[in-house]
Amino acid sequence: MLPAGAALEVIDPEGEQVADLAVFLARDPNEYFSAGRTIDYNERIALTAGDTLYSAGSIPLLRIEEDDVGTHDLLVTPCSERMFELMRGMRNHPSCLANLRDALAPHGIPEVLISSTFNIFMDVRVSADGRITIGPPPSRAGDGIVFRALEDLVIGLTACSSEFSNAGRCKPIGYRVIPEA
Amino acid sequence: MLPAGAALEVIDPEGEQVADLAVFLARDPNEYFSAGRTIDYNERIALTAGDTLYSAGSIPLLRIEEDDVGTHDLLVTPCSERMFELMRGMRNHPSCLANLRDALAPHGIPEVLISSTFNIFMDVRVSADGRITIGPPPSRAGDGIVFRALEDLVIGLTACSSEFSNAGRCKPIGYRVIPEA
Repeated sequence: MLPAGAALEVIDPEGEQVADLAVFLARDPNEYFSAGRTIDYNERIALTAGDTLYSAGSIPLLRIEEDDVGTHDLLVTPCSERMFELMRGMRNHPSCLANLRDALAPHGIPEVLISSTFNIFMDVRVSADGRITIGPPPSRAGDGIVFRALEDLVIGLTACSSEFSNAGRCKPIGYRVIPEA
Repeated sequence: MLPAGAALEVIDPEGEQVADLAVFLARDPNEYFSAGRTIDYNERIALTAGDTLYSAGSIPLLRIEEDDVGTHDLLVTPCSERMFELMRGMRNHPSCLANLRDALAPHGIPEVLISSTFNIFMDVRVSADGRITIGPPPSRAGDGIVFRALEDLVIGLTACSSEFSNAGRCKPIGYRVIPEA
């Protein structure tokens, strides 16, 4: 639970790690973070300080206040067991979706509402012909991003389990909550 | 209801019109079409003949079999009353989301599951700095796209209500269902 007015800082302590952020309005989890609405309202797929994350029903959820990196992804969904099976032939692989599902279930949020995530420090590039390529995260040790809560929110956060997104090594992600001044 | 094996053809009879397509697995509407999963598995934001649309739980829903246009959008969400208010200051504007919600409700599909749509003939371009711009639909009169159902599906389809996406004039969209041969 992140109360309105508080800030969430997400830190990459070792560098080159991705963190998937899921966001829900506390009073109505059907107002889940929507990458599509967020792209529409910001008129950009690349968000940074000053930009706002929106819910499916167009409610402003979080505003980015500080950003050491400036590279985050809104296009792809959190990695899942099924994704590792389909794309890599790997079974029972740990995944962001499983981490978020297990962490959010006690808060009454079902997996079906984990629709899209804000993929912090993830470098997904779009080429002129529409192809996407995933590069290593450009975050260096100690880099961070700060989000301000615009409503009372439930937050899910996981370090990325995919060796294909985090430069081949699953590392920790740090965070802290900064109460409203 | 589009049974597995049948095809759905969507036609733009006058040209320069967008149609938003919502797709659900008939036996479990929680398996809604996911733009994010679809981008991930196709490794592209630009889909055309041969490409597959996936659900949130990674189930293949539809395959594109024919495509006269080759320009469709996976980035933005269907236009909504709230979007017209926030972005344009227009109140009570007709919208794709309202059309889909009203058409899908009798089939037991709540609005919260209309998470993302496949925006047929919609031209959303991404510039090198991540900005998006929406151009007029490149479809000409009579152009179409054919989807093959890979499962029993519930389909929502609407002609676009946004004068900002369809070159300034709200026109009809045609469709037909082609039973399995």
